[in-house]
Amino acid sequence: MTFPSKVKIVEVGPRDGLQNEKETIPADIKIALINQLTAAGFANIEAASFVSPKWVPQMATSTEVMAGITRKQGVIYSALTPNMQGLTAALAANADEMVIFGSASEAFSQKNINCSIADSIERFRDVALAAKQAGKRLRGSISCAFGCPYQGEVSIPAVIDVLQRMRDLGCDEIDIADTIGVGTPNKVKTVMQALVQEFPIDRLSGHFHDTYGQALANIYASLDVGISIYHASVAGLGGCPYAKGATGNVATEDVLYLMQGLGIETGIDLDAVVEAGQFISQHLGRKGSSRAGNAIAAKRASV
Amino acid sequence: MTFPSKVKIVEVGPRDGLQNEKETIPADIKIALINQLTAAGFANIEAASFVSPKWVPQMATSTEVMAGITRKQGVIYSALTPNMQGLTAALAANADEMVIFGSASEAFSQKNINCSIADSIERFRDVALAAKQAGKRLRGSISCAFGCPYQGEVSIPAVIDVLQRMRDLGCDEIDIADTIGVGTPNKVKTVMQALVQEFPIDRLSGHFHDTYGQALANIYASLDVGISIYHASVAGLGGCPYAKGATGNVATEDVLYLMQGLGIETGIDLDAVVEAGQFISQHLGRKGSSRAGNAIAAKRASV
Repeated sequence: MTFPSKVKIVEVGPRDGLQNEKETIPADIKIALINQLTAAGFANIEAASFVSPKWVPQMATSTEVMAGITRKQGVIYSALTPNMQGLTAALAANADEMVIFGSASEAFSQKNINCSIADSIERFRDVALAAKQAGKRLRGSISCAFGCPYQGEVSIPAVIDVLQRMRDLGCDEIDIADTIGVGTPNKVKTVMQALVQEFPIDRLSGHFHDTYGQALANIYASLDVGISIYHASVAGLGGCPYAKGATGNVATEDVLYLMQGLGIETGIDLDAVVEAGQFISQHLGRKGSSRAGNAIAAKRASV
Repeated sequence: MTFPSKVKIVEVGPRDGLQNEKETIPADIKIALINQLTAAGFANIEAASFVSPKWVPQMATSTEVMAGITRKQGVIYSALTPNMQGLTAALAANADEMVIFGSASEAFSQKNINCSIADSIERFRDVALAAKQAGKRLRGSISCAFGCPYQGEVSIPAVIDVLQRMRDLGCDEIDIADTIGVGTPNKVKTVMQALVQEFPIDRLSGHFHDTYGQALANIYASLDVGISIYHASVAGLGGCPYAKGATGNVATEDVLYLMQGLGIETGIDLDAVVEAGQFISQHLGRKGSSRAGNAIAAKRASV
């Protein structure tokens, strides 16, 4: 057992989660959500994406959102920066961490951005350099690390290759993402064990989707490897674009319940996160997909 | 790693799952469901409960259901037998396995049946004897093994005490049930490791609820202890009476997806279970709560 005694939970609901919503969510709702999450104790919140509103209309309010939130000292507010234009906007908005991304699946890269994995990472060189020069943290996010909707299997050497490229661009933290949720725990362990040979274990994160219900088992398996950073989305915000109606991001409440049970410190107030989840679910007009969140809310309602 | 290479999945949807439904489900729907599950390859299906219809109206059709299903050689069709009257009916219906039950929580026992744990198990002595004399399998089910809605914590010695009583009544198999879904994996490991000292590991089963999203992580932890029998409910049938609107039984599809990923043999056809889950969910007029089931069905629909 190499279980960490403390983990960092990166709350990705405001960006990765809400980005998947069709209806435009007003900036003030996003601001209120991020403020609630800040108050709940998260040390890192993915708050914005400075991508062209032509491509992702939901993120058009990113500058407004970043300007409107009440920041807490020490909390990292991250933003996706797909290109130099995005980086310039993210710097202007004073994001604390810039996020670049790439796929470990060649088929996914070709299909989504019509270029090779290697080229897709190379395109981030200027962004990475400018981020570092501005004294910002740089995070790299590797999608399809455990499987791909187009090519199926993704090899460990392919994941390592992207990891090395991101490391060489100066990434401070790298996310290993199960974009379509097909990972299962022993596979996850094997991949993570290979990756910690290539990058410091305390700067590798697990980003798991609950599409097939495996996310918590995969997090438990990653904890056993010693991984101590996990992404999660309040109320399970964010569906799966590859299976309409299926679940996407693992729900933060479920992850916190797991960590509490394991005696692992997070610094986050689960009850406050349940509140935040109820707030955004109410705005979206539907029940959230966090099992722990729904159970805790139901118990509260019955008191 | 003591992971078993093969596990038995006990499908409890037709009884434990449907029992929680308010609307009466006609016998022919239950029969069709059980037949689909038999065809999918389950070796053990909890099919009926011979309890007074005054207490559980949903189970009033148990005799009709048991008479109507198409049995497959070697498959165990189990029935709950709360008393001698129930046992007589279960024998008349030719159930293969009789199930007796009790709680590991004194508060739960007092609150639910107004008697001590010890007395509640003692009351099953005649049932157990008659079942064995009739050459039937006997299964014991221990509820609240990881926590109780009334008293909170449940000690390991309390679980062991019930286990020993059930063992002494001649139980062939004993279920360790997380009735309210509060268990987390390291706790589950600790409890299971203690129990396998008291009862043969290959006849102990894990019955996990997904109320807080922990069930698959708990199953993964139990596999690591070497437990090789798990209960699961198609489409996640069965809610949680202690938190209205929360999730109950872990969904069979999610468990099968886990086992497939781990390379553990189940003998069950996941696609056929997804079909069965769609069938019963359609009858109930709602989406099932299996994440893997919903994802697989969504992918199918998009083809």
